[in-house]
Amino acid sequence: MSNLNTATPIEVIEIESGEENKTIDTCVGVWNALSELGADRKSLMINLGGGVVTDLGGFVACTFKRGIKYINVPTSLLAMVDASVGGKTGVDLGALKNQIGVINSGDMVLIDTAFLDTLPQNHLKSGFAEMLKHGLIYNLKYWNKLIDLSKLTMNDLDELIYESVIIKKDIVTKDPLETNERKHLNFGHTLGHAIESYFLSEDNKEELLHGEAIAIGMILECYLSAELLKFPKEDLEHINLVIKKMFRTVDIKPSDYDPIIELLKYDKKNEHGNINFVLLEAIGKPKIDCIVDNELIFKAFEYYKNNLELENN
Amino acid sequence: MSNLNTATPIEVIEIESGEENKTIDTCVGVWNALSELGADRKSLMINLGGGVVTDLGGFVACTFKRGIKYINVPTSLLAMVDASVGGKTGVDLGALKNQIGVINSGDMVLIDTAFLDTLPQNHLKSGFAEMLKHGLIYNLKYWNKLIDLSKLTMNDLDELIYESVIIKKDIVTKDPLETNERKHLNFGHTLGHAIESYFLSEDNKEELLHGEAIAIGMILECYLSAELLKFPKEDLEHINLVIKKMFRTVDIKPSDYDPIIELLKYDKKNEHGNINFVLLEAIGKPKIDCIVDNELIFKAFEYYKNNLELENN
Repeated sequence: MSNLNTATPIEVIEIESGEENKTIDTCVGVWNALSELGADRKSLMINLGGGVVTDLGGFVACTFKRGIKYINVPTSLLAMVDASVGGKTGVDLGALKNQIGVINSGDMVLIDTAFLDTLPQNHLKSGFAEMLKHGLIYNLKYWNKLIDLSKLTMNDLDELIYESVIIKKDIVTKDPLETNERKHLNFGHTLGHAIESYFLSEDNKEELLHGEAIAIGMILECYLSAELLKFPKEDLEHINLVIKKMFRTVDIKPSDYDPIIELLKYDKKNEHGNINFVLLEAIGKPKIDCIVDNELIFKAFEYYKNNLELENN
Repeated sequence: MSNLNTATPIEVIEIESGEENKTIDTCVGVWNALSELGADRKSLMINLGGGVVTDLGGFVACTFKRGIKYINVPTSLLAMVDASVGGKTGVDLGALKNQIGVINSGDMVLIDTAFLDTLPQNHLKSGFAEMLKHGLIYNLKYWNKLIDLSKLTMNDLDELIYESVIIKKDIVTKDPLETNERKHLNFGHTLGHAIESYFLSEDNKEELLHGEAIAIGMILECYLSAELLKFPKEDLEHINLVIKKMFRTVDIKPSDYDPIIELLKYDKKNEHGNINFVLLEAIGKPKIDCIVDNELIFKAFEYYKNNLELENN
């Protein structure tokens, strides 16, 4: 901050990193800090950090004195391609992801990929999962570019990030309030979020990054797509292979299935008690409001698990 | 609720009454209750109660799963003429009034003055203070109707409430985001809110209802108007008399002045460290963004206090 040449007073408010701090309690801390530092309605908040900072910071800004301006400067790949575009702000409520928030786009998003130089490999991959999702729901061509990893350099990544942001922006602009197309962005997230919440709330489970959970969710939901929407089986196998090559395979036990499915009832896309999935008819051709019965979800977990056993043999 | 004939499941969530419960903690309780009761994005919240319920309930609805629909059914006079019109939702942050919130108008306001039959006298008066404010900032004719109390019946009140709602709606429609005219509604509230916050946070002070604090604020700010904007002294005397006839005169000690003024720095109208008052050039002619120095605020308190001594002699 010290390099900014301005007469405007700048104050820094820091928060603890990690999804477990994306809470209302952290918001109360930031709201109090803003009050104490004399922030007023003309103040500008600059959210510099990963998705937790941009999601939580956006919510704090939108609700402080009923709303002040804010800018997002995402420093993680995930926040660059996902969290900082489209105006979804919010925090978790207990184990329930993003249960509290508002939709508000903020005044600017400033993406500088130089921040990625210091990002750990697993966090880079976590962001890459959302880019893969953009390929699957929007465009076979973009998907094919992404998986041609052999040629991937930092320079290519710049361009791929730009394309990802454009895809998300295009979808969000068509349907800002998520009544239709915007739901496509939830592909992989119905089960992915539930898995993420479950692993976050269970003390004896390893920590899963958001993108790691979404990667599993995408395999599961491609399986459901193949069973329900004639999504090509060879595409399912191919996607399963690509994702498992990039992400460690996570041990989800049969005893975990029920509590994960239990969490689906808190999914924000649900209506009138039904759990609504976004599935794929083909790569680039999503279908919203698909109802899936629990039996088939068990099978999807088994599909993910069987492959785990195969790999381990 | 039992009289509503509907197949839609209805669940009741109750909160404790009183401004001291208009907190983020209460919101967390209601958000959790909504999650547990299976509320989804198609759910409708009906905020039935006074200003605390409509302010807090509106905020909870606007932020639950990033926003569900809500209706306000105000049961207090204050909520009817003020809190339920104009979309200001929110809760207090510690002693700071309405520091956290959003602007969102909800989907309907249903006003039934039958609820007033069970409202205690001091709460009726508290709401009446906001109606008096509408007269002072908007219309001498409406002010004169209001103070002609000798003829006031419940039937008249219905009509006066309707007029008050129309005045507020007119102001809010012109300037929903409070950049100009909407600030007029803050007349009496800059000092009124600070007094209310101060009395709320001090254990040894009596409890002040919102309207009781605003009534004091209006006398103080009429005094400032007379000093700074040539607001007619005879109108000041007249308003002072009308308000003191209706509201008990509150004992504000000289040692209270400084801590009350200290709270002004959290006023939401402040910009760049300046405290912005709304004052009156005449009844029905407000002026925004008036800067007032502390010396004059002391004098205003003395004006209010001196009259207290006169009355007691």
